[in-house]
Amino acid sequence: MLTSVRSPRVQAVRRLTRRSAREAEGRFVVEGPQAVREALPWLLEVFVDASAAERHDELLASATCPVTRVSTAVLDALADTPSPQGVLGVAPLLDVPLERALGQSPRLVCVLEAVSDPGNAGTVLRTADAAGADAVVLTRGSTDPHGSKCVRASAGSLWHLPVVSGPPLVETVRAARAAGLSVLATTGTGGDDLDDLLDRGELAAPTAWLFGNEAAGLSDAALRLADRAVRIPVHGRAESLNVAAAAAVCLYASARAQRVGA
Amino acid sequence: MLTSVRSPRVQAVRRLTRRSAREAEGRFVVEGPQAVREALPWLLEVFVDASAAERHDELLASATCPVTRVSTAVLDALADTPSPQGVLGVAPLLDVPLERALGQSPRLVCVLEAVSDPGNAGTVLRTADAAGADAVVLTRGSTDPHGSKCVRASAGSLWHLPVVSGPPLVETVRAARAAGLSVLATTGTGGDDLDDLLDRGELAAPTAWLFGNEAAGLSDAALRLADRAVRIPVHGRAESLNVAAAAAVCLYASARAQRVGA
Repeated sequence: MLTSVRSPRVQAVRRLTRRSAREAEGRFVVEGPQAVREALPWLLEVFVDASAAERHDELLASATCPVTRVSTAVLDALADTPSPQGVLGVAPLLDVPLERALGQSPRLVCVLEAVSDPGNAGTVLRTADAAGADAVVLTRGSTDPHGSKCVRASAGSLWHLPVVSGPPLVETVRAARAAGLSVLATTGTGGDDLDDLLDRGELAAPTAWLFGNEAAGLSDAALRLADRAVRIPVHGRAESLNVAAAAAVCLYASARAQRVGA
Repeated sequence: MLTSVRSPRVQAVRRLTRRSAREAEGRFVVEGPQAVREALPWLLEVFVDASAAERHDELLASATCPVTRVSTAVLDALADTPSPQGVLGVAPLLDVPLERALGQSPRLVCVLEAVSDPGNAGTVLRTADAAGADAVVLTRGSTDPHGSKCVRASAGSLWHLPVVSGPPLVETVRAARAAGLSVLATTGTGGDDLDDLLDRGELAAPTAWLFGNEAAGLSDAALRLADRAVRIPVHGRAESLNVAAAAAVCLYASARAQRVGA
């Protein structure tokens, strides 16, 4: 049982709250019972305090990696989020190469350019999973999907579909097009209204959606590279949608159009 | 110029970070230039530091309430969010009575039951505004829409449509039905698939959507009171959608169906 917050093993896990340490060591922390359950087959080690060990004995019994008992103080020191609920694990990074993620004739792909809020990124991952997307790509300059807030917001979806982290946007668009996807950029000033695309049946085609930064939107480069710039209709007085809400509207519009078209 | 963090005026504003103080005094704090701009006609007072006063001189010139210069230390002490960007205001609570919010033959209304995350509530407000909803109701037990995180996530939409805070769910559903709205409850186990409702044209009718708590979903009472329990199709392996993503999908499905049907 590990009780010292200052022990080298504890410090080694704590360092993983920093993106640079995660990238150097190729591993990240998965907090709370839900995420630990989803990640279980991949986990390298699990840490659990006494009360969580009792609550989750079945879960822990199915772990194939070492399980270490720790004091609640150590557990809290290991965690980046305020309530890890007594259990966390260390997993290898999930990053998948672009070619592999887009290699199986994808029909729906979600690309985030410079999305900076990890909660938004995690919510988009969860929504993309629900909409049946084949992959999510976070291009260079986006938040790290392995950060604790993104992992939590993804509610397990990080393990449900291929996630690509860090490729340049140009390379991503080229790979998407090579995979037969129509590339649609979302922007408030887009020339094509989402409803018109739906009316014309164009969303039945295999599609990669591009979504931009929370404040700045997509870059000019992204808008130039895309096949179309699409505007989500705003019927009220909001200036725009939150990026996770925009992704929900577009990905579900595609999912329905592809289902009806199929 | 106000420079003491301990001055009674500063303390009076700081207290408004607590819901109980906001309710007792009938006012709340609006942080950052975007929110201050939206709220300007209603503001009771504005606080600004030197650098923001320079950046936003046109905005401040159009204020009809007192504008007080404060030190940056005081501004930060007044604010609940980490980066108020040098300016904030105090506004009367926005709460509108249920009868008034639903009094103008509404076609699309969004009801949140026990939604606890203020960021989710604010994102739903912004999405409801964008989808052209006529009102948003947060029933008793939901987060306060006047909290700083909700105000920020709403990105100004709090001032764009009537927001009702605190009525009991039963009363809300009764009022919605009396206003001619079909009441649809969202739940993962709903008997009606959203796509099927769309196929049958049922979303063209005036609709109140009910969305539930992030963890527990809608209460059994809400499911019983609604006309239909609707399930958003999950094509992948996600267990469910985040409440703000679910609201985006449903509200935009209604907005499109009502537009096509009209």
